[in-house]
Amino acid sequence: MDVGVWLVGARGSVATTVVTGAAALRAGLATPIGCVTQGPDFAGAGLPPLDRLVFGGHDIASTPLPKKAEELSRAGVIPHPLAELVRHDLEAAEAEIRPGIPAAADTAHGQAALARGLARDITDFRERLGLARVVVVHVASTEPPATPHPAHQSLAALTAALEEPGEVLPPSSLYAYAALGAGCAYVDFTPSTGVSLPALDELARERGLPYAGRDAKTGETLVKTALAPMFADRALAVRSWSGTNLLGGGDGATLADPAAGESKRISKERSLPGILGHPVEGRTHIDHVPHLGDWKTAWDHITFEGFLGVRMSLQFTWQGCDSALAAPLVLDLARLMARAHERGHAGPVKELGFFFKDPIALDEHRLQSQYDLLRAWAGTLA
Amino acid sequence: MDVGVWLVGARGSVATTVVTGAAALRAGLATPIGCVTQGPDFAGAGLPPLDRLVFGGHDIASTPLPKKAEELSRAGVIPHPLAELVRHDLEAAEAEIRPGIPAAADTAHGQAALARGLARDITDFRERLGLARVVVVHVASTEPPATPHPAHQSLAALTAALEEPGEVLPPSSLYAYAALGAGCAYVDFTPSTGVSLPALDELARERGLPYAGRDAKTGETLVKTALAPMFADRALAVRSWSGTNLLGGGDGATLADPAAGESKRISKERSLPGILGHPVEGRTHIDHVPHLGDWKTAWDHITFEGFLGVRMSLQFTWQGCDSALAAPLVLDLARLMARAHERGHAGPVKELGFFFKDPIALDEHRLQSQYDLLRAWAGTLA
Amino acid sequence: MDVGVWLVGARGSVATTVVTGAAALRAGLATPIGCVTQGPDFAGAGLPPLDRLVFGGHDIASTPLPKKAEELSRAGVIPHPLAELVRHDLEAAEAEIRPGIPAAADTAHGQAALARGLARDITDFRERLGLARVVVVHVASTEPPATPHPAHQSLAALTAALEEPGEVLPPSSLYAYAALGAGCAYVDFTPSTGVSLPALDELARERGLPYAGRDAKTGETLVKTALAPMFADRALAVRSWSGTNLLGGGDGATLADPAAGESKRISKERSLPGILGHPVEGRTHIDHVPHLGDWKTAWDHITFEGFLGVRMSLQFTWQGCDSALAAPLVLDLARLMARAHERGHAGPVKELGFFFKDPIALDEHRLQSQYDLLRAWAGTLA
Amino acid sequence: MDVGVWLVGARGSVATTVVTGAAALRAGLATPIGCVTQGPDFAGAGLPPLDRLVFGGHDIASTPLPKKAEELSRAGVIPHPLAELVRHDLEAAEAEIRPGIPAAADTAHGQAALARGLARDITDFRERLGLARVVVVHVASTEPPATPHPAHQSLAALTAALEEPGEVLPPSSLYAYAALGAGCAYVDFTPSTGVSLPALDELARERGLPYAGRDAKTGETLVKTALAPMFADRALAVRSWSGTNLLGGGDGATLADPAAGESKRISKERSLPGILGHPVEGRTHIDHVPHLGDWKTAWDHITFEGFLGVRMSLQFTWQGCDSALAAPLVLDLARLMARAHERGHAGPVKELGFFFKDPIALDEHRLQSQYDLLRAWAGTLA
Repeated sequence: MDVGVWLVGARGSVATTVVTGAAALRAGLATPIGCVTQGPDFAGAGLPPLDRLVFGGHDIASTPLPKKAEELSRAGVIPHPLAELVRHDLEAAEAEIRPGIPAAADTAHGQAALARGLARDITDFRERLGLARVVVVHVASTEPPATPHPAHQSLAALTAALEEPGEVLPPSSLYAYAALGAGCAYVDFTPSTGVSLPALDELARERGLPYAGRDAKTGETLVKTALAPMFADRALAVRSWSGTNLLGGGDGATLADPAAGESKRISKERSLPGILGHPVEGRTHIDHVPHLGDWKTAWDHITFEGFLGVRMSLQFTWQGCDSALAAPLVLDLARLMARAHERGHAGPVKELGFFFKDPIALDEHRLQSQYDLLRAWAGTLA
Repeated sequence: MDVGVWLVGARGSVATTVVTGAAALRAGLATPIGCVTQGPDFAGAGLPPLDRLVFGGHDIASTPLPKKAEELSRAGVIPHPLAELVRHDLEAAEAEIRPGIPAAADTAHGQAALARGLARDITDFRERLGLARVVVVHVASTEPPATPHPAHQSLAALTAALEEPGEVLPPSSLYAYAALGAGCAYVDFTPSTGVSLPALDELARERGLPYAGRDAKTGETLVKTALAPMFADRALAVRSWSGTNLLGGGDGATLADPAAGESKRISKERSLPGILGHPVEGRTHIDHVPHLGDWKTAWDHITFEGFLGVRMSLQFTWQGCDSALAAPLVLDLARLMARAHERGHAGPVKELGFFFKDPIALDEHRLQSQYDLLRAWAGTLA
Repeated sequence: MDVGVWLVGARGSVATTVVTGAAALRAGLATPIGCVTQGPDFAGAGLPPLDRLVFGGHDIASTPLPKKAEELSRAGVIPHPLAELVRHDLEAAEAEIRPGIPAAADTAHGQAALARGLARDITDFRERLGLARVVVVHVASTEPPATPHPAHQSLAALTAALEEPGEVLPPSSLYAYAALGAGCAYVDFTPSTGVSLPALDELARERGLPYAGRDAKTGETLVKTALAPMFADRALAVRSWSGTNLLGGGDGATLADPAAGESKRISKERSLPGILGHPVEGRTHIDHVPHLGDWKTAWDHITFEGFLGVRMSLQFTWQGCDSALAAPLVLDLARLMARAHERGHAGPVKELGFFFKDPIALDEHRLQSQYDLLRAWAGTLA
Repeated sequence: MDVGVWLVGARGSVATTVVTGAAALRAGLATPIGCVTQGPDFAGAGLPPLDRLVFGGHDIASTPLPKKAEELSRAGVIPHPLAELVRHDLEAAEAEIRPGIPAAADTAHGQAALARGLARDITDFRERLGLARVVVVHVASTEPPATPHPAHQSLAALTAALEEPGEVLPPSSLYAYAALGAGCAYVDFTPSTGVSLPALDELARERGLPYAGRDAKTGETLVKTALAPMFADRALAVRSWSGTNLLGGGDGATLADPAAGESKRISKERSLPGILGHPVEGRTHIDHVPHLGDWKTAWDHITFEGFLGVRMSLQFTWQGCDSALAAPLVLDLARLMARAHERGHAGPVKELGFFFKDPIALDEHRLQSQYDLLRAWAGTLA
C-alpha cells in the first residue's frame, strides 16, 4: 500500500523539490544523493520504499507546482530538463493540494472549525487514494515565536478554547492539531511552534501517534554540530563562535523579519552550549540578500585557545542550495515516521534528532552521536 | 614513582613547549587546555599524574632548552613571562638531553653500536632518576619515506643486519629499535618510518611493550576527520577535496623538501577515502612560508553534490600554532602509554588512533568514533 | 622647532601605540612600516620629521601610558621589550596629559567654560614646550550621531549658545571647538561628529586653520575601496556586498552599543554606492567579541554578475590589529596637517581623503585615486 | 562596414561564449555586463559597434558551435534558453570555422606552407564577407613555454627557417605569423608564446599592424593587481602571498600538465614584485579539479606586517566562471584593436595592459593605473 506525504506549504520551493525529486528517483532519472535512509544502515528497517510515496498538501500560495518547478529549473535548483520530464507527477500532486489557512484567517467561530476543515482534507486524501497512512510535514514559512496561552498546557483546555472565537494556536500548531486529529504522524521541519506544546504532546500520545522536529539542520548548524565536538574532545577552549547567514529567496525574506528571525536564531544557537558545556561569545546574524536566490552562504568564525592559552581560529564558508539540502530530508523523515507510526510509536521520536537544529526531547547535539542514535533505532524497526 | 618522558628531538619547538607547559601546569601557572586526558572520561584510568612526568631526550641540535623557550616566547608560542618562571625545570630537562644520531652518522661499524649507545642513554636516565618506566616519543623532523630493506621484515634478520656496516634503518627507526631495546613504550609522533616495520613490531611483542603512531593529527586532518563523516552520514556526494597548507618554522622547511613532504602528504591523504568510501578529486599542498613562524594556515575547499546533483561547496581556514597544538598531545600520549605499559599491553595500541593522521592498526578515521574508542579503552585501564 | 601632537583619548590603545612607536622610530628600534609619509612621494614636501613630534593630550581614563603600553605588550600589539625600552618617552608624554571632559560633564555654566579650559591645556602645552604648532587628533571612543541643534549652523549662534547652560555640542565637537580656538589644526580620526558642523567650518576658515576627517580607514573599508573599483572598471555588476566585523577591545565594546555602532555603520556604508554608482544589497554588522582583544576580523561577501548574467562571488577575510593599523596614520596626519597649517591652508583638506572612510569634502572613494590626489597635493607643499 | 573577429580556438568555451553573447547583445536579449568598452569612457573612441562584429576562426576540435553552446547551457555558463534563441548566429559562425593546426602537424615541408594555408583562410573570410578588417584573437589551449630557436630573433632568419622541414615556431606563434601575414591585428589571450618573439614584432612593425597580449586577467591576478597597490600605498610590508587555483574544464586539464602550467604560473607571478617593489614568499598552485566544470576558485593568503612589525593577514576566495569572465574581454579587445589598426598603430599596444596578466611592453601592473592608461589612450582614438 502507498504512503501519503502531506506537505504544509505544498507549493513552496522545498515541497516542489521534494515532489520533483521523488518522481525523478522513481523514474530512474536521478540517484538518491542526500537521502540518508537509502544507505545500508536502513536497508532492513522496513521503511516504505521511495516509489510508494504519494504527495498532497495545503498551501495559501497559488502558483501551481509545475510552474514553480520551472522557476526552480531556471534558478538551477532543479536540473534541466527534469521538471519537464516529471510534469505528470507534478500535476498529480498539484491536484491534491488544498487551500491552507491564511495568516489572517477568520477565527470568529473558533479555530476548531478551521482545524476540522484541514483534517478533512487529509482524511479525504488518505481514503480517496487508499493510503496505508499519511505523514504530515510542515515546510511552510517560519513564524515568530508564539504568544503563550494557558490553553497550550493541556488537551482539555485546548479543545475547549479552540471552540471559542479568537486565535489560540498559531497556524503551524493548528496544522499539527489537525494532522494529529486526522490520525497522522507529524513533523515540524521549521522552527515554528507547531507540535511543541504540552497539549499537542498529550493529543499525540492519546492518539498513539509519533511526532518529530524541529527545524531541519541543513547548513550552518549542520557544520557546527559536526565541528564543535572536535573542540570538546580535544579539550580546546572555544571562546567565540560568530556566524553570518546570507539567504535569498522566500526564506530569507521571511527571516529578515526580526520576529521570525528570532525563532530561527533561538533554534540555531541552542546546539553550541550543549556540546561545549559552556557559553561562548559571538552572535548569529541572518541577512536577506535577494540576489542569492535559492542559495545560502554561511560564514562562521571561531576563536579558541590551545595549550598555554595560545589563540587560534577556524573559519568556514558553507555555500548551499536550501531546497536541495532540505528535500531529501523530507523524504527520509516521511519514510521513518511512516514506519514509526506503523510500529506504534507514540509521542516524540527523539531518535530523529539527527535531522534537526533543535531536536524535540533530545539533549544530544553532536552530529555523529545523533547519527549513531538514529542508526541504532533503525535497527529496532526491523 | 615518577614516569620518564624521553623526547627524540628534545630541543625542538614541540619538546620545548611540552617541557615548559608541564612545568607551568605543575606550578599552577596554566590550565590544562588541550590536554585530552585531563577530562572526566580519563579520571579513573589510573594514568600517571602530569606532575609525576620527568623529561629527558636526544637531540642533534645544540640550542639549550631555556634559550629555545625564550625564542618561543618572542614568537608568541609561550606566553610571557612563563619561560622565565619555569627556567629551573627547563634547566633540569636540559641536563637530561644527550646527543642524538646525526643524519650522516658513521655506520662503518654497523648501526647496532649506535642503537646500544642510544639505549644506554635511556636506561641510564631511568635508573639514575629511579623512574617506574620511560615512554619514548619521537618528535624530531620528518624523514623521507624509508628505502625498503629485506631486514625490515623480521627481527632475526634485522638483528643480524644491524651488526654489519651500512644503513639498514632510517634514524627514526633506529631510535624506535633502541627504545624498545631499552624496555620502553614508544610513540611515533611524526610520519617518519619509526616503529612501523614488521621487525620492530616483532621486537615490541617479544619484549611486551606497547607502541603507537603515527603523525599527530593537529590541524587540517583533524578538521577533515571531523567534517568528512558529516557528508557521509548525510549521503552528500563529495566530489573534490583540495587542501593547501602553509607552514613556517622548521617543520615547514623540512616538509618543503619534496621527499619529506611526500611522507606527510601520504599520511594526510589517507583519511578521506577511508571515511567517504570512495576516492575524490583534489590535491594536498604543503608550502613553506617562513614568515608564518610557528603558525600554520590550512585552507580546504570541498565540492559536493546534493539532491538531484546540485553543486555546493564548503571551505575552511584553520590558523593554528603547531607546537601549542602538538604539545598537550605528547603529554596525553605519555600518560596513556605509561599506563598501557604498566597494564602489560604489547604491540600496537590502536585505541590511540584518535591522536594520529595515519593510525597504526586502525581503519577508523572518523574523529568522534576514534574518541569513543579511546574513551572505552580508558575505561578498561582502571 | 618641534611640532606638538595633542591626542584626545591620549591614554587609549591607539594613542599609546602612537607614542611608543614614535619613540621606537626615533631610537632606531623599529622601521616605519605603515607610515605613508615616509615614502619617496613625500620626501620633498617639507613635512616635520617624525623625531620632531612631541606628544600630549586629554583623556578621562586614568591608567598611565607606561602601564597601558605594558598591557599592549602582553596583548602582542607592541613587541617585547619595546615598551620597556621607550619608557622614558612614555613618561614624558604621560606628564603632558590633562583630564578630558567626562561623558556627563557639568554644563550648568555653559560648555564655553569647558572649552576654554581645554584650549588652555593646549596653548599651555605649546608655549611651555616652545612648539611651532600643535595638531589635535581625536582618537577617543566613537560617539552616537549627534542630536541636531540650531546653533550648529553658524559660528555666531554657536558662540552664544555655548555660554548658556546645557549641552549644545557633543564632546567630540567641543574638543574640536577648543582646538580651533587654541589655533590648532584638527583631525577627526573617528566617526564622531567632531569638526563636521557648519559652525566649526566657519571657525576654522575664520582662524585660518586646516581640518580633516573622518573615521580612519584601517580595515574592511580600506579593502573595500581597493576592490570596488575593480568591479566598476571591469563593468562587472555587483549585486550584494555583505560585511561582518568582529571587534574586541574597547572599540568593540563601544560599537556594540547600537547608537555608536550606527555612526560607524553610516561611515562604512558610504563608499560603496559612491564607487559603483548604484546601491547594492547587503548589510554591515559590527559585533563585539571581547576575546579578540585588540584584533579585528572582517569578512566581506560580494556577489556579482558577469557576462550574460552569470553569478559569481568574491569573499575576503581581513585579520588586523586595530591600534597597529591606526597609529602610523596618526603620525602621517600629524605631519601633513602641521605642514598644511604652516602653508596657510584653511578649512577642510580634502586631499587627505585617502586616510578616511568618510572623507570630508571629497566624493572620491576609490583608494588609488585618493592616493594619487594625496601625492599630487604633497607635491604642492614643497 | 563590418569587422571580423577570427578566433583561434573557435569551438572552445571562450569562443562559444563570445559568439553567443555577441548575438544575444545584438538581439537585445542581454545587457553588456563585463564589457569594458561599453562604458562612457569609450563612447567617443570610434570603436566599431558590437553589432558590426562578424565571427570566424580556426579550431582542431570538431564539436560544432551550436552543440558546444548547448553544453555550456547545461553547465550554467550560458543561461537558458539563450543558446537556442541565437542558434542562427551560432550556425553562421560555425560555417566560418576552418581546421586549425594539430599539435603534431606534419612539418616535413616546412611550417611556411602551413602558415600560408592559415593566412588564406583569414583573407578568404575577409574578402568573401567584405570586412573592413579582421582582428585575430588566440583563445586556444595554453602551450608549454616555447623552445628557444635562433630564428626567433629576426624576421629574415624566421622567414628562411620556416621554409625548412621541422618545427621552428610553436603553434601559437605560427598562428600569429599567419595573422600578421594576412594583414590582421593580433591578440594573445593566453600565456602561450604567440606573438612575443622579436621576429614577429619586426613583422608587425613592417606591416603596420598592432598586436597585444598576453594572458587575459580574469580572476586571481585581477584581484591581486587591485589589492597589492593598497599595501604599497599604505606602506604595509607584504611578507608572503600564496595562491591556490582550482580549475575544472579544459583549461584545468591543460594547466594540470606541469609544462603548460609553468607558462601560466610565470605569467601569474609577474605582477606582484612589480607592484610591491620587492619579492615575497609564497607559491602559486594550479590544480585541475574536473568537478568544477567551467568554474574556477582561487584562494589567496597574504601575510603582512604593520606598525612595529605586528603580523596581520588578508585572504580572499574568488569563485568565477572562466568563460563568462573572458568572453566580454575578447569583444573589448577586438573593438579596441580594430580601431588601433584603423588609426595606423603598429607594434605592441601597451595601453591594453589592463586586460592582461603579463602585459607586453608595459611595466605597470596596478589595475587602476592600467585603467587610467587605457582610458587616456581611448581619448586619443577619437
